[in-house]
Amino acid sequence: MASTAEILEDIMTHPPPAPKAIAYNYLVPNIRGLENMVKIIEARSGNNTTVQSQDAYPTPPPSPQPDSAAPITSSSDPNPMPSDPPVSPAHNNTHEISLFAAATETFSHKNTNCSIAESLSRCTPVLDLARQHNIRVRGYVSVALGCPYEGPDTDPHKVAELTASLLEMGCYEVSVADTTGMGTAPKTRRLLKVLKEAGILDEDLALHFHDTYGQALVNSVVGLESGVRVFDSSVGGLGGCPYSKGATGNVATEDLLHLVHSLGCETGIDMVKMAEIGRWITGEIGKANDSRAGKATLARLDL
Amino acid sequence: MASTAEILEDIMTHPPPAPKAIAYNYLVPNIRGLENMVKIIEARSGNNTTVQSQDAYPTPPPSPQPDSAAPITSSSDPNPMPSDPPVSPAHNNTHEISLFAAATETFSHKNTNCSIAESLSRCTPVLDLARQHNIRVRGYVSVALGCPYEGPDTDPHKVAELTASLLEMGCYEVSVADTTGMGTAPKTRRLLKVLKEAGILDEDLALHFHDTYGQALVNSVVGLESGVRVFDSSVGGLGGCPYSKGATGNVATEDLLHLVHSLGCETGIDMVKMAEIGRWITGEIGKANDSRAGKATLARLDL
Repeated sequence: MASTAEILEDIMTHPPPAPKAIAYNYLVPNIRGLENMVKIIEARSGNNTTVQSQDAYPTPPPSPQPDSAAPITSSSDPNPMPSDPPVSPAHNNTHEISLFAAATETFSHKNTNCSIAESLSRCTPVLDLARQHNIRVRGYVSVALGCPYEGPDTDPHKVAELTASLLEMGCYEVSVADTTGMGTAPKTRRLLKVLKEAGILDEDLALHFHDTYGQALVNSVVGLESGVRVFDSSVGGLGGCPYSKGATGNVATEDLLHLVHSLGCETGIDMVKMAEIGRWITGEIGKANDSRAGKATLARLDL
Repeated sequence: MASTAEILEDIMTHPPPAPKAIAYNYLVPNIRGLENMVKIIEARSGNNTTVQSQDAYPTPPPSPQPDSAAPITSSSDPNPMPSDPPVSPAHNNTHEISLFAAATETFSHKNTNCSIAESLSRCTPVLDLARQHNIRVRGYVSVALGCPYEGPDTDPHKVAELTASLLEMGCYEVSVADTTGMGTAPKTRRLLKVLKEAGILDEDLALHFHDTYGQALVNSVVGLESGVRVFDSSVGGLGGCPYSKGATGNVATEDLLHLVHSLGCETGIDMVKMAEIGRWITGEIGKANDSRAGKATLARLDL
């Protein structure tokens, strides 16, 4: 498997064709990871000290969100927008990073070999360096709805405290993650209530569900009802967590799409194309395609 | 695979041990199927003309329902009810039958080779014979939320009309079935509204979801919110529909259990035992275990 550095280099050298700019997100485990990343960006951009000064890396625009993004043009779009100018992807793509904190001490120790407080303090220099180079940082709070070591009842106040800390430290958004899939509708509702009471705005939040116990879509409906509009997912249900026993992948993008489309949300995403991508990528890496809606969509169309 | 007659004979001769009486349900495609069934019951019961007169087949009690059934005793039950008398299963087991009607003409023709009206009229002698022998009959309305031939928009008024007809003809309950898994939350909500407006009571209804597009649990929540309390499911997600392309199995019992337990419903069912049954039966018949909650429950317990 290619390293983060290799992937970044490749994307900068040969940006994959896409009708819209893409925000590429890299997991950066520590300050050295970001230093390496900055070196690559500077080398590719002509050795300038900040990304901002490069034509290829202007002040990053907001990531495309389901609510605000113009539809991605696709072959099945009955009304392609003629005013949509063709985009040169390399020009507007952004490269952002992710930082993780865990909501339980045991998971923090097992996953990052330090306490929650230490993991936050390790984030500070990363956020500082990212700020200097105008690289956006997304925060994650792991095991927010259940921990493989401490059980299903993660303290929602601890999640709120960490979410607030990550936002205050400079993350543009925090994704609250049900790493173990132990989240249920009532627990999700309570957590979102506690986050609201802590003053955290819906627009600063994302939700990240795993479908390990089959509850990801039910929990997503609770999130939508509460006002959250950004949801993480993974095409074909790829992913998982090596530290969480029995944890299967993230909720499949195709299943989430089928849900939100059924509820009348506009995403600009072509369900058939997404289902084809899910089949292709799971085939390429030899994993089962865990998307029910993706497989059913293709079967129904005989594709 | 054993025939219905063989299964019935075997269950009557060697009733599987169970702490509670079980209502066994058989699909009876036509009057000859029921005549065969009655013959077997009579032979095993001493050649009486009605099942009712037999000690082994008293007037059937209502099937155990999640709301009303006493908890099934299981090894993990912390408070087994000492007053719960041991049941001799053969005495109180009941044998009931199922009749199907489809909500679209095309599916009715493809599945039963006759129109919807003809399929209803074929039900009449079956219901008459069942009534004579005190055998309870459960009705099903197929493709109620989407048809493989006529598309996703089955007319909810047609479903209501068929449901009312089957109840009037003597079915004790009608299971409204999303055979294709095309049901979505808004469509389910609308169908249940139309059924209510047609005067059909929640207690005469069951819901039967397939998880083909991953929406079964979301739709089940809509059903629960609407007042329905009986939901069909299949351990390990077994099943499917040969007439519905790409249709995977029914929603897995384990996933549905995990959902309703998380919402505070009492079922009296031991989740771990159910997960073990799912693993066992899918292994026995060489099919994939499609229950996410079942697999995750066992993985977490290292079972």
